[in-house]
Amino acid sequence: MFSFTINKKLGQARTGIIKTAHGDIRTPAFIPVATKATVKSLTPKQLNEIGFDAILSNTYHLYLQPGADVVEKLGGLQKVSAWHKPMFTDSGGFQVMSLNESLCKVDDEGVDFRSCIDDSKHRFTPEKSMQIQRKLGADLIFSFDQCLDINADYETTKESLARTHAWEERSLVEFKKLNIDNKQALYGIVQGGRFKDLREESAKFIASLDFDALSIGSIFGDPKEESFALVKHAMKFLPEEKTKHLLGIGTVEDIFNYVSLGLDTFDCVLATRLARQGSIFLRPESGGNEENKFRYRITNVKFKESLEPLDNNCECYVCKNFSQGYINHLFKAKEILSNTLATYHNLYFFKKMMDEIRESIEDGGFVELKKKWLERN
Amino acid sequence: MFSFTINKKLGQARTGIIKTAHGDIRTPAFIPVATKATVKSLTPKQLNEIGFDAILSNTYHLYLQPGADVVEKLGGLQKVSAWHKPMFTDSGGFQVMSLNESLCKVDDEGVDFRSCIDDSKHRFTPEKSMQIQRKLGADLIFSFDQCLDINADYETTKESLARTHAWEERSLVEFKKLNIDNKQALYGIVQGGRFKDLREESAKFIASLDFDALSIGSIFGDPKEESFALVKHAMKFLPEEKTKHLLGIGTVEDIFNYVSLGLDTFDCVLATRLARQGSIFLRPESGGNEENKFRYRITNVKFKESLEPLDNNCECYVCKNFSQGYINHLFKAKEILSNTLATYHNLYFFKKMMDEIRESIEDGGFVELKKKWLERN
Repeated sequence: MFSFTINKKLGQARTGIIKTAHGDIRTPAFIPVATKATVKSLTPKQLNEIGFDAILSNTYHLYLQPGADVVEKLGGLQKVSAWHKPMFTDSGGFQVMSLNESLCKVDDEGVDFRSCIDDSKHRFTPEKSMQIQRKLGADLIFSFDQCLDINADYETTKESLARTHAWEERSLVEFKKLNIDNKQALYGIVQGGRFKDLREESAKFIASLDFDALSIGSIFGDPKEESFALVKHAMKFLPEEKTKHLLGIGTVEDIFNYVSLGLDTFDCVLATRLARQGSIFLRPESGGNEENKFRYRITNVKFKESLEPLDNNCECYVCKNFSQGYINHLFKAKEILSNTLATYHNLYFFKKMMDEIRESIEDGGFVELKKKWLERN
Repeated sequence: MFSFTINKKLGQARTGIIKTAHGDIRTPAFIPVATKATVKSLTPKQLNEIGFDAILSNTYHLYLQPGADVVEKLGGLQKVSAWHKPMFTDSGGFQVMSLNESLCKVDDEGVDFRSCIDDSKHRFTPEKSMQIQRKLGADLIFSFDQCLDINADYETTKESLARTHAWEERSLVEFKKLNIDNKQALYGIVQGGRFKDLREESAKFIASLDFDALSIGSIFGDPKEESFALVKHAMKFLPEEKTKHLLGIGTVEDIFNYVSLGLDTFDCVLATRLARQGSIFLRPESGGNEENKFRYRITNVKFKESLEPLDNNCECYVCKNFSQGYINHLFKAKEILSNTLATYHNLYFFKKMMDEIRESIEDGGFVELKKKWLERN
């Protein structure tokens, strides 16, 4: 059911199509995060209206609540969430370790951890992660890796990388056992912390395995130059023909930079989480830039009486219908609609930006577009 | 801009059309409450999709936040909320007294009260309420009354009624001064507590004034027979040709009963407030009845794995797309979407019921419809 086709290349940047059992994803694509099988505060109808091709849910969260068996009984992620287009799930590796680090114990077989909901004890192994992701039923799933603190020292990172590689091999074996109907596709994950040689080793190893698609993990974006250099180096060892996802990355600058390295898909909670805190993304024509991180706070009192839309150069439902004054009021009054409207706008911002990125790669204007957004080469 | 036309009568029940500057309201109608210029958790687009003709906002809440001047500067309630159909505002009289009763001081001129937001001091008079409602700009507004505890004794109620009548006369005088462009219409309010003779006195007095429309206030529905008898008695003294609103009433049983007395419009927070608590309205074909109050709790663990919709006999967006299992999960996970989906469904339930009520009055089947819903005469 899975395939990836490159449509057009411009330097390393490329456009393409990921085909899945639930339809196509036009790449480069931003994938909104639907942690617990819902992009917080939006209906799937609204997500469709914005025009997304795919969303990503978290295995860790769904395993704990409502449980993978429950999701399976309810018909799988797509049916349960009424999102009938492609879906990703991550492997749970990141959340297991990041949400309760002090209470998680790693051995070569897997990870013991405690639930962030009720403190109950659980264990994930590569096999378990594959079984859970099979039950959840997303089209695109990830192998189980160990997400290490990016600041871990060389020895710790090297040791962890060996374990991650073993886990990913086991993930692949288990995946092939489960995926007899060919419904799902599996992403391998390149790790290696902040060490160029380990990233290279990992890229070569992951590229040598029979994954459907590839991804790069534990890139947290800071310092930007170091992260960029690590990804750039790893990309050299990954086969061009496979689609590549960058896990958890999603600032405007990052997306432009990593698209130019040939990354195809990006998931990030930034757009949605910031929306719920009242941070509104702003297009470059409206003054969004790297310095203000392409956003501003609508909760500022200066917007109380503003008749302007969130962004004068945005054509989303929110900007066509509501004023900054109203949305400022909704946030002050703690109205649920504040979350819905801000999330809708922020996601539209990213959707539109990706549309422009794809078009610019197709028509040869990507470098100019990047310059327009980032005001530098 | 305002008119009311009766289309069809069946006993005292009737269908009609309220015309306003922002369009028509088909009556009998249920008016969802948009306290702070938003029906909590829904976009105006979703409200339109459900099919409502009008919503009602609260003067007290909007006066405190964001302020009537701010709403006016933002273009008035309809523009600010992007609800371009008819809107009501209440007078603030009920909230002034119910939200902070111990801190509110009534004299013949008006009411001193403290803000439920920051405890700041404020004063409402009939004139002030009219001025605020003018700034808010709803099509249909209410005169300023004193809402007394329904259990107040005869002497207290009689004294309060005299004051209410004086306040309503002053409301009318101020309204006529402000409404020179004829944009708004004013509802008088019948009070009189739980005393038949005071309700009669009030109905006669309010009917004698030049209000565009009429309403009955401080009917809290319990005990039902007593409330019903009071409204029934008051209705005898109100002119047939004016449209009549019943303030704050909105159970299924109440709506059927009061429609049969000739009431045209109803506002109530029940459908929306209960939705956010996980109470789901259920049609009679699906087992909704007076005993279960036409609702059930979706948060019950028994729905965890249910593939059924919220109501098998409902055709709303939620019931066509989502399972009880998913909505149970959303409530357990405290996801915002739980509120949106439950509110959407509950409001659709009331909208559909009102459609059926109007049709049944038009085609002579209202008594049968009422029997079907309430299983008694």
